[in-house]
Amino acid sequence: MEGYRGFLGLLVSALLVGFLSVIFVLVWVLHYREGLGWDGGALEFNWHPVLAVTGFVFIQGIAIIVYRLPWTWKCSKLLMKSIHAGLNAVAAVLAIISVVAVFDYHSARSIPHMYSLHSWVGLTAVILYVQQLVLGFLIFLLPWAPLSLRAVVMPIHVYSGLLLFGTVIATVLMGVTEKLFFVLKNPSYHSFPPEGVFTNTLGLLIVVFGALIFWIVTRPQWKRPREPGSILLQPNGGAEGMEGAMAISTSHSPDSADAELSSERAARKRTLGLDDAGQRSTM
Amino acid sequence: MEGYRGFLGLLVSALLVGFLSVIFVLVWVLHYREGLGWDGGALEFNWHPVLAVTGFVFIQGIAIIVYRLPWTWKCSKLLMKSIHAGLNAVAAVLAIISVVAVFDYHSARSIPHMYSLHSWVGLTAVILYVQQLVLGFLIFLLPWAPLSLRAVVMPIHVYSGLLLFGTVIATVLMGVTEKLFFVLKNPSYHSFPPEGVFTNTLGLLIVVFGALIFWIVTRPQWKRPREPGSILLQPNGGAEGMEGAMAISTSHSPDSADAELSSERAARKRTLGLDDAGQRSTM
Repeated sequence: MEGYRGFLGLLVSALLVGFLSVIFVLVWVLHYREGLGWDGGALEFNWHPVLAVTGFVFIQGIAIIVYRLPWTWKCSKLLMKSIHAGLNAVAAVLAIISVVAVFDYHSARSIPHMYSLHSWVGLTAVILYVQQLVLGFLIFLLPWAPLSLRAVVMPIHVYSGLLLFGTVIATVLMGVTEKLFFVLKNPSYHSFPPEGVFTNTLGLLIVVFGALIFWIVTRPQWKRPREPGSILLQPNGGAEGMEGAMAISTSHSPDSADAELSSERAARKRTLGLDDAGQRSTM
Repeated sequence: MEGYRGFLGLLVSALLVGFLSVIFVLVWVLHYREGLGWDGGALEFNWHPVLAVTGFVFIQGIAIIVYRLPWTWKCSKLLMKSIHAGLNAVAAVLAIISVVAVFDYHSARSIPHMYSLHSWVGLTAVILYVQQLVLGFLIFLLPWAPLSLRAVVMPIHVYSGLLLFGTVIATVLMGVTEKLFFVLKNPSYHSFPPEGVFTNTLGLLIVVFGALIFWIVTRPQWKRPREPGSILLQPNGGAEGMEGAMAISTSHSPDSADAELSSERAARKRTLGLDDAGQRSTM
């Protein structure tokens, strides 16, 4: 792998910052807030930030870059797709439980649901994330989708994945803001109480985690390579927006199931390669 | 241009949604809030959201996609760089004035500065945005930077630009959240008052605007093309992270000053082209 040490440094940084974010959110609810429980009260609410940060930020972030780990490049594409889908499924389940915790809490206290911008953006993100997961499973993991469909959907899948990841981070930042203005009354948030400073720091850690994942997943030199035996098809054209180049291979061919935001060659040359054997390897 | 109608549809959508966001933020402060003024009070504070949405979101978004407008492809690269830098400079000035408005307001009312997560992330974004502008001016617009430096910095410039754009949107969403929880007391935010619903909608518009800009700028087929006479240099290697492929051309060569997040060819082949004449054309 080109720039292996740089990759390793950034990966370790991302894992550390992500892990630290999880620790911070746990310290927040266990030390500064009421702790965790499932009682319809504050203890249940507190699962909301814990599961959102752990599942919807940290695990989703790892799911995004899992194809880029060079020591997985000898693994089959089917295995890697399964790990990618599995991690995203875990993230989705934790996100859903985190939403249930808030709805339960609101219901128990007769607080109306879904009034804040945080809730509007957040619930939209959860629904679209589940849709992305289901469509990804049907189109890329199950063996029946035609290759042309996969080629059309891949760039949308990659774009949607990164957009949702960014939206989730923005939603978490809104949630932290909302909660701190709710609970920090005496002493007030604006008097810099330890909880305010600590939780602001959690917000910054999450932004840095997102920035690291975004950098790792958009470096072309860290992309899972094609198999040596792969051949590129170059038809005379292609459907609009079809830049997810994929390779026909004589063996199983790992390719573009992670970020390929801007394969210039694919666009300029209208190269549409289809990962024929690669797709078969997923059956 | 490939997929011209699709591009046009998305561009018009982005402009409409962006314009609507500006209208919404104006209606918010003029109809629901106290209006605009420069008095150290609420009227002055209200410039903060207006200038942030107009400059830091809308104008920055346009600056990001300006190289992609196909009817500018006949214009010189110097002109396009100047427009890109000029729009970003206008955005930076408006962002700075928007920050000054809040500091003035806080000072006049003896409210402490910089205590919220919104302020931490937002001020960091403004500082990094100005740094990005200055470095971009020195390295890409002034004629003296060596081509190797431009090639190294280009992918970082593109990444930082998109990351800052996303961070600014997240900051605006936090700001809207913070303000609505502050001001909507009677009737409360959770009773769905018109101002709450209206301003939540503003937040959604800003997210949709960001999503449209992100899609437009990451489609490889909509990238400003190289000049026909351009030649690619393919040295035996390149510095780590150097995937900003640029073309040597016998004429002025427009190239990669907008998003090239993942030029796979550049990565796989370690292609380092240097836009020699293109850079000279900027002098």
